[in-house]
Amino acid sequence: MAQPVALTMGDPAGVGPELTRRVWECLRTAGRPFFWIGDPVLLGGNTPYREICHPSEAAACFAEALPVLALSCPEPVKPGHPSTGNAVAVIESIRKAVHYALSGAAGAVVTNPIAKHVLAASGFPHPGHTEFLAALCGASGREVMMLACPQLKVALTSIHVSLRQAIETLSADRIMAVSRVTASALQRDFGLVQPRLAIAGLNPHAGENGMMGDEESRIIKPAIEALQREGLEVSGPMPPDTMFSAAVRPRYDAAICLYHDQGLIPVKALDMAGGVNVTLGLPIIRTSPDHGTAFDIAVGPGETGKASISSLSSALAMAHDMASQRVMSDAQTP
Amino acid sequence: MAQPVALTMGDPAGVGPELTRRVWECLRTAGRPFFWIGDPVLLGGNTPYREICHPSEAAACFAEALPVLALSCPEPVKPGHPSTGNAVAVIESIRKAVHYALSGAAGAVVTNPIAKHVLAASGFPHPGHTEFLAALCGASGREVMMLACPQLKVALTSIHVSLRQAIETLSADRIMAVSRVTASALQRDFGLVQPRLAIAGLNPHAGENGMMGDEESRIIKPAIEALQREGLEVSGPMPPDTMFSAAVRPRYDAAICLYHDQGLIPVKALDMAGGVNVTLGLPIIRTSPDHGTAFDIAVGPGETGKASISSLSSALAMAHDMASQRVMSDAQTP
Repeated sequence: MAQPVALTMGDPAGVGPELTRRVWECLRTAGRPFFWIGDPVLLGGNTPYREICHPSEAAACFAEALPVLALSCPEPVKPGHPSTGNAVAVIESIRKAVHYALSGAAGAVVTNPIAKHVLAASGFPHPGHTEFLAALCGASGREVMMLACPQLKVALTSIHVSLRQAIETLSADRIMAVSRVTASALQRDFGLVQPRLAIAGLNPHAGENGMMGDEESRIIKPAIEALQREGLEVSGPMPPDTMFSAAVRPRYDAAICLYHDQGLIPVKALDMAGGVNVTLGLPIIRTSPDHGTAFDIAVGPGETGKASISSLSSALAMAHDMASQRVMSDAQTP
Repeated sequence: MAQPVALTMGDPAGVGPELTRRVWECLRTAGRPFFWIGDPVLLGGNTPYREICHPSEAAACFAEALPVLALSCPEPVKPGHPSTGNAVAVIESIRKAVHYALSGAAGAVVTNPIAKHVLAASGFPHPGHTEFLAALCGASGREVMMLACPQLKVALTSIHVSLRQAIETLSADRIMAVSRVTASALQRDFGLVQPRLAIAGLNPHAGENGMMGDEESRIIKPAIEALQREGLEVSGPMPPDTMFSAAVRPRYDAAICLYHDQGLIPVKALDMAGGVNVTLGLPIIRTSPDHGTAFDIAVGPGETGKASISSLSSALAMAHDMASQRVMSDAQTP
């Protein structure tokens, strides 16, 4: 049995508090407890919640009340209007979640959306959630972004850089590092004994024997061959347009994609309900919903707006599944 | 009522002859006649076919027999083993189909797959089908590739070049030319009075205000603004990862994509049954199935192998729909 999952507050003026309340209402009887690290004022008066002092108290009350490790927002929260004055609470929620995950008291961390520009304006030095989590874990530079939906998992060799820069910085070393982290996570956290990775080509038709680009022969094939020598089950370079089709997807467990949109286009095209963002390469398990703060549709405490809980719900379910699998995997490792 | 559709032979050693026979068996009573320009020997003895001398004879016999404008392959055909000696017949079939479409005797051209390397070895100077068709129509350089499935239509600003080259050759002029051709085809051949185009960004999140690439501000936005001044309904630059999601797709009729895989990944990820390749910008209507000759699964005359007829069937249906729409559109134009 895995420990309960820590769910962060996210930006208090975004949809995080509303989604937290609604997703708890849906999942309260599902037997997979989580606790929220946030300001209980944001939940509204009609939501049963229980202030807890430690994650170990979450499971017992979860069916009756949302377990909350309480934090206070220093400034009043206006839905849709983020305040840099509350950044300190947003950051503290993430810090606490990572602390409990690293100590083993929480099985995983699920993060509600934050607004990068709000945190940046308050002096927060990290480009985003993922980098901050990596720094808190002492694993900076090892983080790998994976996006997962029921039909497909993709891990990315680069994220938030221009397409030109993604091509220019592509290297066999980076492909190998991302592939190793992904294979290792698929084993330990997804229970796949021999995970099958499919490495995308960069160019149309994976270059068609050098007729359209040489990155396949210069960079990608050497990486694949080196990974195969290490014993990993790796195929590719795959023609990027067909590798995400229904006929080809069953041939691999995760695709290694060479730029942001190569991986995110098929996941978001396929997934009706909301993909899950998974950070691999950290000592802790971390997932997050695949949407932002959605300030434009944020509502006040206790109110129900237009935001969909499906991505947060999927992120919590995947975090639980991964945490449970990790407990089993680690128990089997001699 | 549109004229019958001309279907080319394609490579006689590929799946074209088998798919032609099987798709006719499925569609014979559907009331949308086509005729095949090929060697009747390839159909096998059990297929009822009728040799015709002109496309105008196709409709009357279509329910009873596959109408064939007969061509002879100079060399014996071995399924799966293409011969450069038969290239002359492959080319003649395309030439005749275009002739009848240009003269108005055929409503559209649907092409069975050819093998570029086989034709090239016989001295054929064109890189592929599309360029040959454009040359036959006197429209070289004006052709635009569109891929269509029920959920999505994408038109591409570049096709078979490396990803680097697609970025380097991207220009506002090219985006505008492709957008105009696409809008015009959506009006005339798809019956959309005011088609809505969504122009993709090039970079993640469409550059996020220049933080990840400047092509959006330098090239794409100026093109969009110029198109809007011309009266076209154009939006963008759209974040490429979300624009193909189920929530965003209903907001436009066609996406203008800036590199091969940006457009083909979502179509092939979404479409279970087989997308249709549509060539826009020519005076004639032309569609084709979205697969190749499939020499590895080609079978002999009258035999039924593993190839799926769905993409050819969709290509024929779309060609008929476009031809019928064009008749109506042209009748309404003063």
